[in-house]
Amino acid sequence: MRSLLSISDIENEVVKILDIASDFKAGKIEEKPLKNQKLAMIFQKSSTRTRVSFEVGMYELGGTALFLSTNDIQLGRGEPIKDTAKVLSRFVDAIMIRAIEHDDVIELRDESDVPIINGLTNLEHPCQALADMLTVKEHKGGFDGKFVYVGDGNNVCNSLLLICGCLGMDMVVACPEEYKPNEEIVAKAEGYAKTNNSTITITNDVKSAASGADVIYTDVWVSMGDEEEEKKRRFEFKDYQVNQELIDLADDDVIFMHCLPAIRGEEVSAEVIDGPHSVVYDEAENRMHAQKAVLYYFLKELQ
Amino acid sequence: MRSLLSISDIENEVVKILDIASDFKAGKIEEKPLKNQKLAMIFQKSSTRTRVSFEVGMYELGGTALFLSTNDIQLGRGEPIKDTAKVLSRFVDAIMIRAIEHDDVIELRDESDVPIINGLTNLEHPCQALADMLTVKEHKGGFDGKFVYVGDGNNVCNSLLLICGCLGMDMVVACPEEYKPNEEIVAKAEGYAKTNNSTITITNDVKSAASGADVIYTDVWVSMGDEEEEKKRRFEFKDYQVNQELIDLADDDVIFMHCLPAIRGEEVSAEVIDGPHSVVYDEAENRMHAQKAVLYYFLKELQ
Amino acid sequence: MRSLLSISDIENEVVKILDIASDFKAGKIEEKPLKNQKLAMIFQKSSTRTRVSFEVGMYELGGTALFLSTNDIQLGRGEPIKDTAKVLSRFVDAIMIRAIEHDDVIELRDESDVPIINGLTNLEHPCQALADMLTVKEHKGGFDGKFVYVGDGNNVCNSLLLICGCLGMDMVVACPEEYKPNEEIVAKAEGYAKTNNSTITITNDVKSAASGADVIYTDVWVSMGDEEEEKKRRFEFKDYQVNQELIDLADDDVIFMHCLPAIRGEEVSAEVIDGPHSVVYDEAENRMHAQKAVLYYFLKELQ
Repeated sequence: MRSLLSISDIENEVVKILDIASDFKAGKIEEKPLKNQKLAMIFQKSSTRTRVSFEVGMYELGGTALFLSTNDIQLGRGEPIKDTAKVLSRFVDAIMIRAIEHDDVIELRDESDVPIINGLTNLEHPCQALADMLTVKEHKGGFDGKFVYVGDGNNVCNSLLLICGCLGMDMVVACPEEYKPNEEIVAKAEGYAKTNNSTITITNDVKSAASGADVIYTDVWVSMGDEEEEKKRRFEFKDYQVNQELIDLADDDVIFMHCLPAIRGEEVSAEVIDGPHSVVYDEAENRMHAQKAVLYYFLKELQ
Repeated sequence: MRSLLSISDIENEVVKILDIASDFKAGKIEEKPLKNQKLAMIFQKSSTRTRVSFEVGMYELGGTALFLSTNDIQLGRGEPIKDTAKVLSRFVDAIMIRAIEHDDVIELRDESDVPIINGLTNLEHPCQALADMLTVKEHKGGFDGKFVYVGDGNNVCNSLLLICGCLGMDMVVACPEEYKPNEEIVAKAEGYAKTNNSTITITNDVKSAASGADVIYTDVWVSMGDEEEEKKRRFEFKDYQVNQELIDLADDDVIFMHCLPAIRGEEVSAEVIDGPHSVVYDEAENRMHAQKAVLYYFLKELQ
Repeated sequence: MRSLLSISDIENEVVKILDIASDFKAGKIEEKPLKNQKLAMIFQKSSTRTRVSFEVGMYELGGTALFLSTNDIQLGRGEPIKDTAKVLSRFVDAIMIRAIEHDDVIELRDESDVPIINGLTNLEHPCQALADMLTVKEHKGGFDGKFVYVGDGNNVCNSLLLICGCLGMDMVVACPEEYKPNEEIVAKAEGYAKTNNSTITITNDVKSAASGADVIYTDVWVSMGDEEEEKKRRFEFKDYQVNQELIDLADDDVIFMHCLPAIRGEEVSAEVIDGPHSVVYDEAENRMHAQKAVLYYFLKELQ
C-alpha cells in the first residue's frame, strides 16, 4: 500500500498521473470509478480550495468525503497519531490531511492501513504541484519551457522543484537568500533534473530569472503560520513582486500562475493576476482534476 | 445566467416557483432531477434551518451540498470576493450564501459564473418569503386575504412586502416608527401591489392592523447582529407582541406564522405559537420545498 | 415510534440487534437498505469516533448524515428543544445526538416525531455498549465469561452494566468508592441479571476482580467535563491502572477493551493496549457495525 506525501513518492509516475487527470477532465474515464469509497479529510488548518476540490472530486468519483476540522479531530493532541490512524483505517478507504508538521503526516502514514494523501504540510504540497503541471501541460503543450518561481522558497516551491525535476522542465527559483527552498529537496530535485536532462537554478536575481520565462509563478509572502514575521517579510520580498515590468521580460506567451489566495499589490500586481497572461482560475480548477487522478491512481490502479 | 438575490429577481415567476414547490411536496416531479450537481453553501452566520433545509433538499434533488462555515471560508477577508466567486464557480453548479452584507452578495453574483441563491442577508430573505407564501397557499387556499406583519421591519419583512406585492396580497406592516422596513423596498412593493390590485400599508397601530387579519406574522425583536440594542428594542417593541388578545381581533381562521427561532414571551406568547392557529412547523418544513423549487428552477428550467 | 436512549429501551432486543450487526459486518444484508434516508447528527461535544462511524455507517446504508456541531445548533440555548425537535423531524428520518445532559435528550425524544439515537450522554452510551458486546461475541464466542470493568463508573460503565444484565453475562465493576456507577442503573442491571441468571458485582478490590477475567475493560480517568478534577482523579484512580500485572491475574485468553481515546500510562499501560490481548481497534470498528444495526432496526424493522 502506497501513500502520496511527496512528489518523490511518484518520481516515475508523474506523467501517468497527469494523463489520468487529463482524461478525467476530458470525461474519458468511466463514471464513478470509486463507487462507495470513503475519504477522510483532516484539516489542521482551514483551506477552502483543498477542501472543496477534494470533496467535489470524491463525489464525482462516486464516493464520499468526510470533513474533519481541528474542532473534530486533534491529531496528536488528546490521542496518539497511531490510534487516529488505526481507527480511521477501519472506517475509510483513504485519508487526506492538510497538516502543520510534515513529520506528523509521516507518522500517520507509518501507522495507517490505508493510503495517506498530503493535502499540504510545511514541507510539501504535491497535489498543488500536480495541478500546476497539468495547467502547464494544457497551456504550454508540454514541459520544454522555462519555469520561474519568484518569492518564498516554501512548501509549494519545494514540490514544484521536485516535479520539474521529474518532468525534465528547467526551473529557476528567484528568492532572497534567507528564503531559499529546503536544501535536501533542492538536492533531490537536481538529481531528478540531471536524469531528465534539465536544470535547477536558485538565484536572487529576479530579472535575469524572469528573462525569457514561459511560466512565472509566485505565492504569498506571508503564509499561514508566518504572521509574526509579516513586517520583516514584506520588506525583504519587496523586490520580488510579479508585476508588468517583470512580465515584460518574459516570453510573449508567458503564463502567470499562483496557487491562491493572492494578495494583489504584494507578491503580484492586480494588473498581472487579472491580466491576459494569468491562468490562475484554470490552475485552481485543476486541483480537482489532479486530485481525482491521485485518488483514482492510489485507490484503483495500484490496488 | 440568473441569480436569486431578491424577490424582485423573480417578480413575474413567483407563482410558477410556488407551483413547482407544491409539485415537489406532492411528489409529482421526477426523482433526483439535479443528479450529480453540487451546491456550495457559504455561512457567514450559522443558521440551522437554512443549512439543514438546503442540505437535505439538495440531497433529495439527487445532488450534494458542501457546508462552508466562516471557519472554512472568509468572504472578502483574506481573499477578494472575486477570487472566491471565480474559483467556486469551477467546482460547483450553484452557490447559496447566508451573508451579513447584501452588498457582498451582489459582488459575489457579479463575479460568479454560477447562480447565487440568497440564503439571508441584512436586506432580504427571499427563500423564507417563498416558503411563507407556500404555507399561505396551503392553509388559506390563495392570496386573497390580509397578511399582517407585526414587529421589526427587517430583512424577512422586506422580502414579504415584495412577494405580497407580486402575488397581489394585501399586506399591513405594524411596527414602531423607528423600525420601518427599507424605503426603497416599500416603494418597489407598492409598485408591484398597484400592478396586481393590492395594497401595502405601513402603520404603528397594531390593533387596527390585526383586525380581520387572515395571517399574522412576526419575527424576533433582536436579530443576530442587533444584540447591543437588546434593551432598547425590548422596550420599543413591547406593544407589538403577538398574543391571544391580538389573535382575537383577527379573522376566526387566522394563521400565525413565524420564521423561527422564536422567543416565547417576547414577540409571541407561548399560547399563540403553541396554539391552534400556529402553522410554524409547516412553515419551517416549507423552507425545504420552496428551496428545492428554487434550485430546480434556476439549475434546470432556466438552463 | 421508538428511540434508543438507554440499553433499557432494547432490554429484550439486544441479541437481535447484535445479530443484525454481525450480518452487516458479514455483508449478509441487502445493499443500501435505508436508501435516501437522512440522519441528523447533533454534537454538543466533539467526538471523532462517533461522528465518523455514524457518517460512514449511514452512507453505507444508502442514506446521508448531516453533521451539526455546537456552532450550527445550540440545543436548548437560543431555541427551545421543542422547536429544534419539531423542525428537524420535518427534514430528517432520525436524529443522533451526542449530548451533555441526558435530560435534554429525554426532552428531545419527547418532542420529536422521529427516532432519537443516544450517541453519548452523561448517563449512558448505548451504542458503545452494543459495539462492545459485538466485540465480545466475536472474540469470546458468547457471553458466558466474566466481564470486568476497571476504573470510573461513568456513562460507558452504566450502559455496560445494563447490557451485561440483558445478555446474562457476569459483570464486575472495580472502582473507588466515590466513583461507583449510577445507583438506579445498578439496580436495574441487577434486575436484568437476575432474570438472566447472571451476577452484577461492584467492588473496590481490583485484583480479585481481575482474577480469572475473560474481558478487562477500562476508560479514561478524566472524561470530557471532568477536567477540573484532573489532579484528584489521577490520585484516586492510581491503583486502578490496567497493566501487565493485572492482565496476568486474568484468564490466559483475556481480551483487553477500551472505548478510546486512551491515555497510555494512566488508565492503561502501553504494554497492554498495544499488546496481544488488546482488541481495541476491532472494538472501534464495531461502533460502525453496531450503529448500522441500530439504524436499520429502528428505521426499517420497527417501521
